[in-house]
Amino acid sequence: MNKLTKHQVSQALSPAASNSKGLRISPEDLLARTNGRVDLEALGQLAGQSIINPRQFDRRTVNAIAQMAAVLEMRNVEIDKPLDGKIAITAFFEPSTRTRLSFESAVQRLDGKVLSVPDGQVTGIAKGESLADIGEMFNTYGDVVIMRHPDTNSMEEIRRNLQRPLINAGNGSGHHPTQALIDWYALLKWRPELATEHCPPERRIHLGIIGTPGSMRAVKSFLRISLMFPGAVSKITIISEMADPVGLDLTEPIEQSVIPITITNDVQKVLPDLDVLYVNSIAFLGDSYRNLDARYKLDRNSKLKPGAVIMHPLARNQELSEDLDETEHNLYFAQAAGAVFVRQAILTAVLDRLDRINGI
Amino acid sequence: MNKLTKHQVSQALSPAASNSKGLRISPEDLLARTNGRVDLEALGQLAGQSIINPRQFDRRTVNAIAQMAAVLEMRNVEIDKPLDGKIAITAFFEPSTRTRLSFESAVQRLDGKVLSVPDGQVTGIAKGESLADIGEMFNTYGDVVIMRHPDTNSMEEIRRNLQRPLINAGNGSGHHPTQALIDWYALLKWRPELATEHCPPERRIHLGIIGTPGSMRAVKSFLRISLMFPGAVSKITIISEMADPVGLDLTEPIEQSVIPITITNDVQKVLPDLDVLYVNSIAFLGDSYRNLDARYKLDRNSKLKPGAVIMHPLARNQELSEDLDETEHNLYFAQAAGAVFVRQAILTAVLDRLDRINGI
Amino acid sequence: MNKLTKHQVSQALSPAASNSKGLRISPEDLLARTNGRVDLEALGQLAGQSIINPRQFDRRTVNAIAQMAAVLEMRNVEIDKPLDGKIAITAFFEPSTRTRLSFESAVQRLDGKVLSVPDGQVTGIAKGESLADIGEMFNTYGDVVIMRHPDTNSMEEIRRNLQRPLINAGNGSGHHPTQALIDWYALLKWRPELATEHCPPERRIHLGIIGTPGSMRAVKSFLRISLMFPGAVSKITIISEMADPVGLDLTEPIEQSVIPITITNDVQKVLPDLDVLYVNSIAFLGDSYRNLDARYKLDRNSKLKPGAVIMHPLARNQELSEDLDETEHNLYFAQAAGAVFVRQAILTAVLDRLDRINGI
Repeated sequence: MNKLTKHQVSQALSPAASNSKGLRISPEDLLARTNGRVDLEALGQLAGQSIINPRQFDRRTVNAIAQMAAVLEMRNVEIDKPLDGKIAITAFFEPSTRTRLSFESAVQRLDGKVLSVPDGQVTGIAKGESLADIGEMFNTYGDVVIMRHPDTNSMEEIRRNLQRPLINAGNGSGHHPTQALIDWYALLKWRPELATEHCPPERRIHLGIIGTPGSMRAVKSFLRISLMFPGAVSKITIISEMADPVGLDLTEPIEQSVIPITITNDVQKVLPDLDVLYVNSIAFLGDSYRNLDARYKLDRNSKLKPGAVIMHPLARNQELSEDLDETEHNLYFAQAAGAVFVRQAILTAVLDRLDRINGI
Repeated sequence: MNKLTKHQVSQALSPAASNSKGLRISPEDLLARTNGRVDLEALGQLAGQSIINPRQFDRRTVNAIAQMAAVLEMRNVEIDKPLDGKIAITAFFEPSTRTRLSFESAVQRLDGKVLSVPDGQVTGIAKGESLADIGEMFNTYGDVVIMRHPDTNSMEEIRRNLQRPLINAGNGSGHHPTQALIDWYALLKWRPELATEHCPPERRIHLGIIGTPGSMRAVKSFLRISLMFPGAVSKITIISEMADPVGLDLTEPIEQSVIPITITNDVQKVLPDLDVLYVNSIAFLGDSYRNLDARYKLDRNSKLKPGAVIMHPLARNQELSEDLDETEHNLYFAQAAGAVFVRQAILTAVLDRLDRINGI
Repeated sequence: MNKLTKHQVSQALSPAASNSKGLRISPEDLLARTNGRVDLEALGQLAGQSIINPRQFDRRTVNAIAQMAAVLEMRNVEIDKPLDGKIAITAFFEPSTRTRLSFESAVQRLDGKVLSVPDGQVTGIAKGESLADIGEMFNTYGDVVIMRHPDTNSMEEIRRNLQRPLINAGNGSGHHPTQALIDWYALLKWRPELATEHCPPERRIHLGIIGTPGSMRAVKSFLRISLMFPGAVSKITIISEMADPVGLDLTEPIEQSVIPITITNDVQKVLPDLDVLYVNSIAFLGDSYRNLDARYKLDRNSKLKPGAVIMHPLARNQELSEDLDETEHNLYFAQAAGAVFVRQAILTAVLDRLDRINGI
């Protein structure tokens, strides 16, 4: 067995591994912008709250969560054990290893514990028991519930009896608020000026979205948060094969927004003008998931603007070629690498344990 | 985001949440009865024992477990970390999210660790491996095994090689001893005089059971423990659609009991006289589960005696209407809310860690 | 409830339970051979390494791992909490409760944490996501990945992006290196002279293998390690119903070995001459698992040499009768009982935490 070099060992075992390919984005600049201080007043308001819909947030809260995530990414706060004694229930009635493990890693890194329901549909929980009864049960089992469910109204249902904070990890065609916060954490690390009220015009972004916000919860939540950043987003273009891709949920916030929004189905035309391109293809239609907007396939030959970045909530299908992974357009791996820190920030705030983290 | 009030936050994050609806029953009165002292001599006998069948217990042990559960419910004993270093294996060959998570919460709250087998039938464990071989495997993996299995003789089978304490979490049409202890914990909190040898006659209960003890393990175990309380239970009425609902297991203990037992299929007639009504509808017949006794449906219009309480091991089907949840007849939510504490009491005793809990 | 004796309690709750039946083999003699000292130089080379194929090892490393396992088996090192703060991901795309729980027990006993994927095929992870993308995801979720997968090339695939150490827990018809180390740990405890360079000729073993190394990964890995012990193994006989049971992987190491290797299909003839008989029947053929070599059934009537021992990686099928369990030929239960300690030794070395174990 060939011994690894000290450098190789410390890389393989580093407490904060970064993405293997694509852009690397450091949290340092983001933190520097606020002199390393986290907006604890905004974060403190999350104590005891459920996180259901991104409309609960405003720009200040989004920025505060990103700052907190940056602190967690830069420092080894695990030694503070901020979630010691807390139990999170991960209840996935629609299985998702990626999202479930992300939350479970976040909890355990901070010394919390996990009760895991990897597949609520096939286990005893599904024997016709109502979500309200399940919520009642969770009251004495854990301190916070993280739920994914194929029914859009499931969050409301379980909260009929649940008295613990509930974190929506995806509800049917509804929302996926923590994913949107992860997405914006990546954007703010990539270009920290976006966090400020008055981003210089030449640093503002033209944001393209390939997907159908109305039936893709991750895209919908990302768009909802993006509307909170009128000083950072100069323009939004939605590229979809659907006639009305936006859906009812966002009609009003879009009308009230000062950001100009265009809808097109001609990806080739708009591509060279975009600074950020958000891609997704999994949509919820009626009562099941389908691959949508899959005729827009991105690869190394796509006419991307130099310096433009691609985002994707992952997992991906054919819409995003692996040949982009090694390019500087790949922000999606860095985006994914920030997920655990954002979820740690949210959980620490919701469980009112910000005071356990030394030196913030 | 609207900040919650301090009171709302502390309720959402309280270490010991109670049930959201129905009767709230405090453990204080139960403990006061023994001047806050737990019968450690009786509890200590559980050290290293397997918990298979309620016939292992007597009234004194049932009371001691209830006292211990009450201490755990009232005090924040998690800081004592009584199960530190202990591993519990939850082996569910018949899936049950409710029971599995209840045990896993109990273990983790006391700082023990969990090896989880949520669905023993579909995982590799089922590749024709014998329960005896599985028991041999568990010897070196964990310190205590919590097993549910559709075969009634499964407990015997695994104990051919298993040297660790085994806790029966339900075996076919056999028993479910921890559920019965949870049921009696609720009764003793609700009316603490039931714990004493000489409960005043007017406080004794007429206990009704809708269900078929012979093929419903939870009901069977509850009835078995109830027979240990002749000074508290003045009368038992079993309401079932089966000709012989009791089954062979309990023939002898019923014959030896001084409590008069009646069997009827006329729920309307007996209902107004009951103080406590225990309801269940899931029965094990031959080799699968079926809904039995489902023609007895309870709702707000049922002619219940004022002050009478309904118990149910949950999950429920149609036999118990949600419109009872908000009434004072609902003891079943409080009953469920005590489950974790009873299981903590049992595990702490079985694993011989009572001495780690300060001040008992 | 009858109180157990102090001895019965301490046996049921002993921190290091041994096997219930068959030979008991103590780690003491093995350690005594090196004056209780572990070869930390050899073990240290595992820091940050992936464990994919037994060809990575040499005799010295195998001995060092066995020594470390022996220390872990003899001492209660859990109080050192050597894996504190580390997260292991157990990703089983081919379910195996036995192997998964063994690793998860090893991690948790040393105070590490676990992210568990009990059945990668049925959960969201399988939605067409590539192993490379899954590896990228794991980079920020955990510190080490333990993977089993039905595809032989899966280890290579996930390592395209995975930067964390990877431990192969079985890959198609490939390898199962930790199982082979467990097997040799049992042999070295059983007859510690085998660890030395010059084992006295009369203590060397004639090793029989019932099985098809070419399509049985556990058998293949065991044979591969056995070839590293020419001073201990005087002869190897492979008993298989296949024409060419060895397969391509081992052609070269077998040719280079000084140990004489014979292939036969006449088990009766060779049986009385064997000192050690390794048995397995699960083979990977094409793309699924099949019971092979099942016509060789061992039971109490088999003509075993006095003092000969039987090994089996378990789970077993019909090839190994339970009537051998109570005999002195049964080394397989002791072999299984060593699994957790060997995996602890590997994980502690790979995660570079040997320095956290006091007094080695």
